[in-house]
Parts: sequence; structure tokens; C-alpha cells
Amino acid sequence: MLAHSLVAVVACVGSAAAVSVDPLPAPRSIVWGSAGPIAVPDLVAVDLPTSQILADAWDRAWGTIVGLRWVPQATQAPISSYEPFPTATAAAASPSTHKRNENEQQQQLQLVKVNVADVDVDLQAEVDESYTLDLAPGSDTIEINANTTWGALHAFTTLQQIVISDGSNSNDANGLIIEQPVHIEDAPLYSWRGIMIDTGRNFISLPKIKEQIDGMALSKMNILHWHLTDSQSWPFDMHTYPEMIRDAYSPRETFSRSDVSDIIEYARARGVRVVPEVDTPGHSAAGWQQIDSSIVACANSWWSNDNYAYHTAVEPPPGQLDIINNDTYGVVENVYNELSDIFTDNYYHIGGDELNTNCYKFSAYVTDWLSSDPTRTYNDLVQYWVDHAFPIFQNIPNRKLLFWEDLLLGDPHALSVPTENVLVQSWQNGIANIHNLTARGYDVLVSSADFLYLDCGFGGFVTNDPRYNVQSNPDPSQDNFNYLGDGGSWCAPYKTWQRIYDYDFTTNLTSEQAAHVKGAVAALWSEQVDDTVVSDRIWPRAAALAELVWSGNRDERTGGKRTTLLTQRILNFREYLVANGVMATPLVPKYCLQHPHACDLYYNQTVIT
Amino acid sequence: MLAHSLVAVVACVGSAAAVSVDPLPAPRSIVWGSAGPIAVPDLVAVDLPTSQILADAWDRAWGTIVGLRWVPQATQAPISSYEPFPTATAAAASPSTHKRNENEQQQQLQLVKVNVADVDVDLQAEVDESYTLDLAPGSDTIEINANTTWGALHAFTTLQQIVISDGSNSNDANGLIIEQPVHIEDAPLYSWRGIMIDTGRNFISLPKIKEQIDGMALSKMNILHWHLTDSQSWPFDMHTYPEMIRDAYSPRETFSRSDVSDIIEYARARGVRVVPEVDTPGHSAAGWQQIDSSIVACANSWWSNDNYAYHTAVEPPPGQLDIINNDTYGVVENVYNELSDIFTDNYYHIGGDELNTNCYKFSAYVTDWLSSDPTRTYNDLVQYWVDHAFPIFQNIPNRKLLFWEDLLLGDPHALSVPTENVLVQSWQNGIANIHNLTARGYDVLVSSADFLYLDCGFGGFVTNDPRYNVQSNPDPSQDNFNYLGDGGSWCAPYKTWQRIYDYDFTTNLTSEQAAHVKGAVAALWSEQVDDTVVSDRIWPRAAALAELVWSGNRDERTGGKRTTLLTQRILNFREYLVANGVMATPLVPKYCLQHPHACDLYYNQTVIT
Repeated sequence: MLAHSLVAVVACVGSAAAVSVDPLPAPRSIVWGSAGPIAVPDLVAVDLPTSQILADAWDRAWGTIVGLRWVPQATQAPISSYEPFPTATAAAASPSTHKRNENEQQQQLQLVKVNVADVDVDLQAEVDESYTLDLAPGSDTIEINANTTWGALHAFTTLQQIVISDGSNSNDANGLIIEQPVHIEDAPLYSWRGIMIDTGRNFISLPKIKEQIDGMALSKMNILHWHLTDSQSWPFDMHTYPEMIRDAYSPRETFSRSDVSDIIEYARARGVRVVPEVDTPGHSAAGWQQIDSSIVACANSWWSNDNYAYHTAVEPPPGQLDIINNDTYGVVENVYNELSDIFTDNYYHIGGDELNTNCYKFSAYVTDWLSSDPTRTYNDLVQYWVDHAFPIFQNIPNRKLLFWEDLLLGDPHALSVPTENVLVQSWQNGIANIHNLTARGYDVLVSSADFLYLDCGFGGFVTNDPRYNVQSNPDPSQDNFNYLGDGGSWCAPYKTWQRIYDYDFTTNLTSEQAAHVKGAVAALWSEQVDDTVVSDRIWPRAAALAELVWSGNRDERTGGKRTTLLTQRILNFREYLVANGVMATPLVPKYCLQHPHACDLYYNQTVIT
Repeated sequence: MLAHSLVAVVACVGSAAAVSVDPLPAPRSIVWGSAGPIAVPDLVAVDLPTSQILADAWDRAWGTIVGLRWVPQATQAPISSYEPFPTATAAAASPSTHKRNENEQQQQLQLVKVNVADVDVDLQAEVDESYTLDLAPGSDTIEINANTTWGALHAFTTLQQIVISDGSNSNDANGLIIEQPVHIEDAPLYSWRGIMIDTGRNFISLPKIKEQIDGMALSKMNILHWHLTDSQSWPFDMHTYPEMIRDAYSPRETFSRSDVSDIIEYARARGVRVVPEVDTPGHSAAGWQQIDSSIVACANSWWSNDNYAYHTAVEPPPGQLDIINNDTYGVVENVYNELSDIFTDNYYHIGGDELNTNCYKFSAYVTDWLSSDPTRTYNDLVQYWVDHAFPIFQNIPNRKLLFWEDLLLGDPHALSVPTENVLVQSWQNGIANIHNLTARGYDVLVSSADFLYLDCGFGGFVTNDPRYNVQSNPDPSQDNFNYLGDGGSWCAPYKTWQRIYDYDFTTNLTSEQAAHVKGAVAALWSEQVDDTVVSDRIWPRAAALAELVWSGNRDERTGGKRTTLLTQRILNFREYLVANGVMATPLVPKYCLQHPHACDLYYNQTVIT
């Protein structure tokens, strides 16, 4: 008998109950009855609203259920009892395993009935993604209800995780089962749940981008923030300015318009919005310089981290759009309009991070402008950009702008940016900056580097770095560069799934401020990333964020953090990702999957609060 | 005209000379003339001694040359001149690119002649791996000379890196060229050059192990240290004790005897020795416990890092062979003899690391033995292991033992271990332990964790860890756990290729001590590693070690470190690895490959000394 509910599971740590089925993200509410599992045949009738997206998604979900016959690879169970220290030998408790219920021979699932209130609702920000999923006691029908197509898609990814194989596969049964009854009511806590990829530092191919979208769909994430270009390369083949593609790394490492449309369609079919970013006015050299070198400042300067007074960029190569050169704006408008023609989301990311003032010392336009009025500052220069570029960006119907917080909080920063129709992406200083921005009335997207930057911890990418040339620990009394320190990674250490999941990014916000927080995006900057590693850097860690922004990191009843209970769920989900072709990194020795909580640091299961 | 030599390149930073051909590891001596490249047709005669290994290796090397038509992806060039700060715009110098010489139409390579003094010399420790490679002025023949098959294999991997494509591919030419003349005299500085993989914590499949061997062959590494088992799992299918395989993670995640022989043959064909390690008496639970639970101590104990007084293992699950239970030795002998039957190398690794004294408090054998003579200590216990196990291990003809330094330096440690026919692998305290061991007369294999552990920097794998649950920096004045600190990785930070290459592991040794250092092995422990990431964790970082132990990290003429010059070489080599199916991680934005030294931290090219 498998009587359990999510709440019961949370509460019953220490009992012997096992939950074989543990979808990620945990639904907001999932209630299991006690009738035991019923069989699921390979062929089940499905009653779908007329929708190609739904039909395709159903085929994928059901194909995965039948194709994988997933046996959970890590199931929830209380931590074992161990031999007390020190005594004679006694066998440790074995984790419970799933047993088929006698009932299942007598009943089979016959029908999945999917109701969608309005299949025509577009996939845009704040769309309703809720759904319910029911298998009533004694029923042979699963009923799914959603207000939109996008909610129904989430129901399918839940269904494909709760229909599992019991490991048997006999002549009279395929081994697939689902617990009965089950009642799920589900909807995300936050409407922005995403990952950021960067195809400017290194190229990422179409198949690998699709692999990320597959992982997002499985974990109910809905935003692919696509940092398309950077000062290093411009991989996008523009019609307006075909010369920009000269700054792709090679003819192979490019995206055509149809490639981009392919990605957008692929993502949309899985409930994922694609929000493009062409970073301006900073991080801009490649591509732009091919059109007109006069609109790019300091592109031929030494980045000069070794002589910081002359430092022109946070990383090589330098390059920023010239804010005062009027020719800049015509080019920006043309590039922007073409991109807006291809990217269908209402939101567009305009960048805005890490402007370097020294870079503009290479611009006669800027230096003349500053010297012609001694009251002018670099903050005025940023404001000039806002005043001249925002009208271009906002001259598209329904357009809303996303930008990095630096435009408001950086040095330099703009003096006045309206709060309407903008969403500010915060990456520095964790909760402090979220507090600051929401207090000023801005909607915020959380990408705090201390928790959500997936590229941290791999040392520095810059070469010719003498700091590594140290033969013994210069100061064992404290962590230092090569010994337990950052090792050259500015945002070290590597963010573990526990670190990500434990992030309470609305701590100490008023309810009004908290309402300004629209979600979170885990960012993978690609200085040290391309096809070979993009999936293992993102997954399964992004799945910890996926649950954090879908149903939170706390048990509703106790209020305690459920990080310890996420363990087996995310360990199983990692295996599930790999089985689905998403090359996620392993988190632990497989022993830990097979021995629930044997790899916990604390025997106390509520040590994380 | 491409007049250059390695020495010239080192010396001529600041000049315009470009070296398109830059094999890794850099040969001990490579001298180029100035006649310019000659063409290399797809079909070239080869004169080989009779040897299946040589014939196969030649086919692979030539197949790669013709199949890849490799265009170097990062070529050596002096750092550019940049616009001075701040001035008017001036174009930066472009890196030189390779141009075909007019001569090449007039001459083609006709023959590769390979002479091997003795093709029958076995691949064992200290085998002669030297070779010479010559293309004399005006000659149409490459001559390779080696004393052994294994030297000739290295010549082939050099050849396949110095025959490159000039990027053209016309009707009358395939684009392949080689500089003429060239004279290479090459041999390794150290006879042990390896990587360690761990199939005990997580399984690694045969194809992925072979992928590592491919990378090793290309970088002239010759040791695969195979940490076969650990307390977590026993993947090896033994005939003697078929029950051991019950502690594999699954029937799929196992190695049969023929799988192992397949790996050994595959490695041998590429000049790589396979040295197995079955760690004893620590790190032993899986497998052993299936034979006889009484020979394993503390397998059912809580590892108890949360109550350190009761701590029984450095990581879960605990388990150590019972040193006093006499039944242990019969089992060890049977297991060892079967493994020695399969693994053909003279060296065998017996483990010996991280013995935990608390674990033996769970053994009545040990506690009785200790209490029966109050003068006995845990060091005596380790000595008991040495006295009883070593005779078993040494009872194989030509057998030499490799073990972790803990057996000599740990707490507890043995009191007396002979220095003959043993090789001690050092992993702690960097140069200090190497100094200690060599001073005592031991031969040493360097695996210092601070430089050569490739698994560091990914946070902790243990779950239920409250240290991640920290919402803001508790002390911005210094690095701490979640903020620029170790983030849960005991050996953080991640070891960059620069860190590895800069390691001077014989610093302050006498010449007698230095002669005891036999080489180095980069270790990848697999708590957070399986097929998905094993290649990107090892490569291309292991290639930095490969060059360090092949030809060193210094320019012979100036004595200065050549880390800055390794940059383009390793960046190109990484692309070459990927092209050869070894899924190495990218180190930098591709921009850095295409703009030599633009991503250096210092404009000063000799800042690393």
C-alpha cells in the first residue's frame, strides 16, 4: 500500500513510507489516495482540444512514457538507521522499493481527457500556466484541466513523470503504472523561470540550444534568455547589415534568420519564450565595428587590467557603442528593427551592463561632449543613451524592455529611467539590490551572481596569469587564491544545487516589493562554455531553480526548507534528464541515489531551516 | 617565408614571426629551416618495420591527417600593438597567417621511413620512448627513428600535428603541407605521465575510457591509473568471487574480464600502460562485503561528519578491510591473483589511503588485538597490514607496488616499508611531501591535489548541507564559504591549465631526490563525474600536465617559464582534441584563439617567471 501525500511525506521523515513518484518541480499541491497503482497500457485514448501544439506535445510526452518506461532511479525514503558507535554488526535498513498492487491487474487506464479553456491564448509574459490533473478513485480516466495551452503542456510533463515503470515487463503487462487516486492542483509562483545562454563568447549550436529547451520543458521553465552577441563575436546573419557576420567565429558558427525562427518555434512548442539580448551600449564591438568603426569606442585598445588606470573593459576585447556619435542610433535602430521582426516575444533585452568610462576616453565625440560642458558627468552620458535609445527600443507595439540593473545602479548609471514597461535584471549584491530596485518601483528579474551564475568556479579564462605560479601555500591560516580561494573566478565558488535552491530572494521585502519580483533566470556566461559542456553546466542545477520559482523551497505546512527532500527528487531528475538526451552532470556517487540520505552531511533531516 | 625555431619563437616575442605548427607537447628539440613548406599528398609511401601495432598506429595517424585536414585553430604570434591610451584610432596589428610557399608546387612528400631498433621491447615502466623525426632540406622523405615501438608511436602523433592544411583545397592540391626542413629530437623528461580515472564512485563506460586513452595518446601520456573500485561500488565481474558484482550499480554498469582486456589492448596499441588500483585496506566495502561481511569493518556505520568524534570515513559509505581478521588475507590474495592475471603491467596499485581509526572501533578483532597489548597503536595496526598483505602482493614475478603516501605519512601510518620495488603516489602538501618521501629514498609519483586533482571546485557532493543556506555575505572583508571561498570543495579551487603547468614539483630537491621523482598523474575522482562529464573534466587540462612531464614548463635557453607560449598551443590542441572525438572543455572565448595574446592578463609577455 502506498498511502502518501506530499505533506505526509514531508511530515513522516523517520517512518518507513516510500514515495516512488516524485516529479520535479514538486507541484504546488499533490494528494495521493491509497487505492494503489493501476496499470497504464501502451495505447491509451486521448481527448485533446484541436491544437497542433497540444497534439505534438502529447505525442512527445506519451512517446517518452512508453519509450523510456522510467523506473525511478532515486526514490524518497527516510534516512536509514545505522549501527550505533561502536557496537556489533546489524544490517542497515534497506530503502523501500515499489511493489505492484494487486488491484492493478483488475484496472487499466483507458483515457486521458484534456480540457483547455482557451487554446488561442498566446505565450507571452504572465500567461496563465496553471493546470489540474486528476485520476479519481476507481476511474479509468485521467482528467487534465488548464486555462491555456501552456498550462496543459505543464500537465503533460507532470504526467510523464508520474507514470512510471515498476521494473517488470511481462507478457501481460508493460510494467507502467500510475498511483490512484491522485489530485494535482498546480501553478507557478513566478511567471519568469529561465536560463540564460551566451552565444557571443563562444558559439552554441542549434541542437545544443534545443537540448536546453528540452530540459526547461521537463522542469517547467519558460524563459530562454538568449544573450546573442558580445564584443567577441556576432554570430547572427543580418539582412540589414550582412557585413556584421564577418565577426562570427567561422561560417559554420552562425545563426541564420531561419535558425532563429526554428529555435523560437521549438521553444514555443514547449511553452518556452525566447527573449533575445543584444547587449548595448557596452559589450559591443563585434558586428557593429563592421558597419562603421566610428560607432564603436575603444575597440582597438588594450583592455589593460594590468594597468588599471587605463582599464577599458571587464574582459577582452574592449568595445562600446559610441553614445554621442549620432550615427550610432541609426544603426541601432536598423539592427533592432530587424531583430524585432524575428523575435516574437513582447520583451526584448537591451543589455545595459558594465559600461566602462575609460573606454569613452577613446571617443572624440564623448570627450568633446563632456568638455563642452564641465557639469556633465558619465552619468549624464548614460542618461543620454537612455534618452536617445529608449525611444527607438520602445517604438514597437506592445514592446517591453528588459535590461541589466547596471543602467540604474552601475557606475556610471542613468539618472532617470521610467518604471513602466521595463523589467530590471539584478545580478549583483544579492538581496540588497533586489531590495533597492523594488523599493524604487521597478519590476525585477533575479539573476544574482552569488546564487544563480552557473559559470562560476572554473578559474579565470584570461591567459598569462602569474597568480597561478605559486608553489606552496603562502598563508595556510586563511583561504587564498590557489588554496581554497577563488582561483581566478570572480564569482567563485561554483554554485551547487543546494546553494541555488536555498536562495530566499524576497527576504525582508515588503509585500509590495515582493510583488515586483517576477521570477529568476540562472545565467551561464560562455567564456569557458560551448557545445561540449553547455548542458552539464546548466543541468541539473537549473532544475533546482526551476522548483524554487515554481513551488518554492519550503514545506507549506511546516515552513521549513525542503532542500533535504529535494535531494532524491533532483537526483532522480538528473537521471531522467540524461535519459531524455539532456547531458546533465552527476551530483553524487550513484550509491547516494540508491541509499536515500546516506550521503547527507547531517543525520538530522531538518538541519536546513 | 617561415623561418623559425622553437628557441627563436621564445626569443622573438615582439617580432612578426608566426608559427602555424605548434605540436603539444612541445618536443624537447625542434629546429625548422627556412625552405618553406612542401606539399603532402593524400597517399604517401610508408616504410614500416613489421609490427601490427606500428601498422595500426600509422593508419590511425595518417587517416587523421588526411581526414581532418587540420587547419591550426590558434597559432603563435606576438601580442598585438594597441592604440595607446587614449589617442585617435589606429588599426591593431593582425596576427600573421600561414601562406603557401611557391616551392610547394615543385615538391611533394613521397615517403615516410620508420626505423625501430627493437620492435619487441615491451611496454613497461621506464621503456625508451625517444624518437627523432627528420625532413632534410630538399628531401622528399620523412625519416623517423626510434629505439622502440613506443617511441615510434610518439613520432606519429608528432607528425600528425605538424602536417597541417593551409586551408586551401584545390583540384591540384589537397592543401596539406609540412614545413621543410624540420629536425626533431624528442624524449620525455619523466617516464610516468598519466591520468587517474575512478570507476568506483560512478561508472564510466568503455567508450568513454577509450576516449581518455585517445587524448592521452595525442598528448604523449602513457599511464592510465584506473581506480577500479571504492567503498561505493564494485563494477568488476570476478570469476573467483562472482558475488562481488552484486555491488555494481546495475548490471549495465559493470566490466567483464574481456572488457578490461579490451581496454588494456586499446591502451597498449597507443603506448599507454594501464595500472589498476583496488584500494585496500581503506575505501573498501562494496564487493568485499558480499564475500564475507566479517572482513569489512564499519560498513554499517553512519559516516558521522556531523559528530566528528564518531567519524568513520572521509565520505559515505564507510568501510575498511579488517586488518586483524585472518580471513581478510585469503580473500585479498584471491582477488589480487585474479586481477594480476588480467592486468599485464608490472606495477599494481594497492591503494593505502585515508585509513580511519574510528572505523576499526567497529571491529572486535581490532579492538581485542589493541587491548591485548596496551603498547600497540594504530600505526602498529597499519604495519600489521603491511607485514601481512605485502607478501601477498609481492608474490607475483616482476611485481612492483604503487601506493598512496598515506601508508607512510598518514595518521595512522606504517612504521617500516621497504623502498625497493615500490612507487609512492603523493597527493597532499605539494612539494613538502615530495621532499619528505624522496629524502627517505622512495620513488615518487606526483599527484599533488593542490595542482593535479581535476575534480576540485565543484562544491561538495554531500547533501543536506546547511552551509549553502546563507542569504548574504556574512563577512565581505574576507573570502568565506559561499563568497569567493571553497564552496564545499575540500580541494578548491578548480585547477586551471595554468596552475597545472606552472607546478615546479622538484623545487628545492637535491639532484638525488629529484631522480626519485618518476613523473606525475592528474587525478579525477568521480563523486561528481560519469560519462557525461569525464572528458571535459580531464581535457584539455591534462594536456598541460602532459607537456610539463614531457618537456617541462621552461624555455631551455632563457630558463623562464613558457606558460604564456603554451597558451596558443593548448588552445589549438583543445580544438584538435574535440576534432578527434575527445570532448574537451573550451578554455576561453574563441576570440582569444583568433587573436593571439589578446586575452592575456598582462601585456608583459614574461610576467610569469
